[in-house]
Amino acid sequence: MTRIITIGGAQLGPIRRDEARSAVVARMIALMEQAARRGVQMLIYPELALTTFFPRWFMEDQAEVDAFFETEMPGPETQPLFDRARELGMGFSFGYAEKAVYDGRLRRFNTSILVGPDGEIAARYHKIHLPGHSEHEPWRAFQHLEKRYFEPGETPYMSTELMGGKWAMAICNDRRWPETYRESALRGAEVLTLGYNTPLHYPLAPEHDHLQAFHNHLCMQAGAYANGLWVVGVAKAGREEDCDLLGQSCIIAPTGEIVAMASTIGDELITADCDLDRTQEIRDHIFNFEKHRRPDMYPMLTRQSNGQ
Amino acid sequence: MTRIITIGGAQLGPIRRDEARSAVVARMIALMEQAARRGVQMLIYPELALTTFFPRWFMEDQAEVDAFFETEMPGPETQPLFDRARELGMGFSFGYAEKAVYDGRLRRFNTSILVGPDGEIAARYHKIHLPGHSEHEPWRAFQHLEKRYFEPGETPYMSTELMGGKWAMAICNDRRWPETYRESALRGAEVLTLGYNTPLHYPLAPEHDHLQAFHNHLCMQAGAYANGLWVVGVAKAGREEDCDLLGQSCIIAPTGEIVAMASTIGDELITADCDLDRTQEIRDHIFNFEKHRRPDMYPMLTRQSNGQ
Repeated sequence: MTRIITIGGAQLGPIRRDEARSAVVARMIALMEQAARRGVQMLIYPELALTTFFPRWFMEDQAEVDAFFETEMPGPETQPLFDRARELGMGFSFGYAEKAVYDGRLRRFNTSILVGPDGEIAARYHKIHLPGHSEHEPWRAFQHLEKRYFEPGETPYMSTELMGGKWAMAICNDRRWPETYRESALRGAEVLTLGYNTPLHYPLAPEHDHLQAFHNHLCMQAGAYANGLWVVGVAKAGREEDCDLLGQSCIIAPTGEIVAMASTIGDELITADCDLDRTQEIRDHIFNFEKHRRPDMYPMLTRQSNGQ
Repeated sequence: MTRIITIGGAQLGPIRRDEARSAVVARMIALMEQAARRGVQMLIYPELALTTFFPRWFMEDQAEVDAFFETEMPGPETQPLFDRARELGMGFSFGYAEKAVYDGRLRRFNTSILVGPDGEIAARYHKIHLPGHSEHEPWRAFQHLEKRYFEPGETPYMSTELMGGKWAMAICNDRRWPETYRESALRGAEVLTLGYNTPLHYPLAPEHDHLQAFHNHLCMQAGAYANGLWVVGVAKAGREEDCDLLGQSCIIAPTGEIVAMASTIGDELITADCDLDRTQEIRDHIFNFEKHRRPDMYPMLTRQSNGQ
C-alpha cells in the first residue's frame, strides 16, 4: 500500500490589524480550493492564521487582547473553512490564539489543530517554546509579548495517526529547538507541521537580521534529516502592520532537502507528494534510534536547571 | 579581555594502510608549522589521525587489529608532535585508536585528546556514537566495523577549560546527533571539535550518496547555531585505499555560518579567528536556555528504550 500523501503549505501574506476573521477565512478557503485542484490531501496554514500577529503590541486592556482569541473552534467565522474542507475531503491544520477552560480555569494558549478529512479535530497542540518577553519594552521597534499573552503548553509533542500517517505539530519558535523534532520522532511522528510568524528584524541581536532566512531553513532541514521526518514549515509573510515577516514556506524531505518552497511573500500555495515510507531510509539506517542512539549519555538534556 | 583564539583545522589527505606512524606524524608537524606561521593557537586534526581508517576491513586476527592502536600517548612515534607543539606554544587535538586499561581491564576506544600549549593532555574523550556494524558483511564494498573494534564511550560529553575558553570534543558520527551539541553546550562548552572519516558511499542507503557533503555541513551548522557554539569539523579526506572520503573541513561560527573551509581533499590547513564571546550573541538571546528551554517537555530524550 502506497503511503504517498500530497501535502500543501498555504502561506498567508500579511493580515491587517482591522481585517475581519471572515475576510481571512475567505483567503484561506481560496487557497484550499486551489490546493484541491492540485490534489492536496492535507493543507497546512501558518501560526495565528486568523489574525494579525498581535503580540507585537503592548496592550493593557485585556478585552483588547482577547479580541484576537477564539473561544470556540470551529466558531461562526471559522465554520465555513471546516465545511469547505469536509466537502473537498481535505485534512488541514492551522494555528490560532485559543481562550478556553483547561483544568477548571480559563487559559490562553498559542494553539494549533490538526483536522481530518472528515472535518473532526484529531489533535490539538499548545505551543511549548514561547519566545519574547512578558513586560513592555518600549525601546523595541515592535514588541514580542508571547510570554505575556499566552501560557506555555504543558503537554509534550505528540504523534497522531491520521490518513495512514503519523503527524506531530509544533509552532514557530519550536522549530529552532532540536528537541522538538527528536521528541516528536521518538513518538513515531512521520510529518511535523510548523507554522510561523518570523520578523526579519530581531531587536535583541540585529547583527543577525540578514541570517533570518538561513536560520529558518537550517533548523528545519537539520531537524528533518536528524529524525527522518517530513517537515512542513508555513509562514505568515510580508509587511504586516509595519513589521516585515519572513516567507520561504517550505516542504522538507526526510533527507533534509527542500522539495517545495514559496517564492513570494503573499498568499501562496506550495505542494509536494510526500512518501511517508521515505522516513525509513533514515530511521532504518544511519539514525536507527534503537541501534545507535545513546540516551544514557545525555543526562543534561532533561535536567530541570541548566547548571554547568 | 579579548577572547579571540586563532583556531586551525588540519585536514589530512589519505593515509595508506602501510604508511608508518612516523610519516603521518611528519605530515602533521608540517601542517603545525604552517599553522604557526598563520598565528594558530589551537590546531585540530581528524579522527584516527595516525593511521588509515582500518574499520573498513574485517580482520579476524586481533594482533592485526591491534597494530592500529596506540598503547601509550604520547608514545615514541607521537612524541615529536607533542615536542614541536610545546616549542611553538600551540594547543592541539587529534583522534586515535586507544588500547588502555580502564576499570581494571584492557579496553579499546575511538579516542580524541585535547592538549594544551604546555604539551599536557587536558582532556580525553571516548567516542559515544559508534556507527556501522559488528559482524562481517561481505556484500558491502567496504566494511564499517567500528562496533566490532571499539567499545562505546561511557562518559558524556564534557567541557574543559583551556586557554581562556571551554572546549568539548566529539568524533565523526557524533556530529549527526543533535544531542552531542546540546549536551556539550549545557555543560558550558564554547568550542566543539569534531574529527571525521566519512566515506562518500554509504552502503545501506546509496541513494543518499550525493548528499554526503550537504549532510556533513547541515548537521554541524545546525548544531553550532542551535547552541551558540563554535564548531571545528576536520576531515580525513580523499581516496584512501579505494575508499573515497569526504573533505570540506570547516570552521563554523555560533551563527551557523561557515567561516573557513577546505577546498582540496589532501593535507590542508584552514584557520579562523574565533571570538569565544560571540557565543553570547546566541545564548543570551534567542537560545537563552534558562529562559526559553523546556526540559520538562522532552521526556523521551533520555528514556532508555525508544518505545513509542
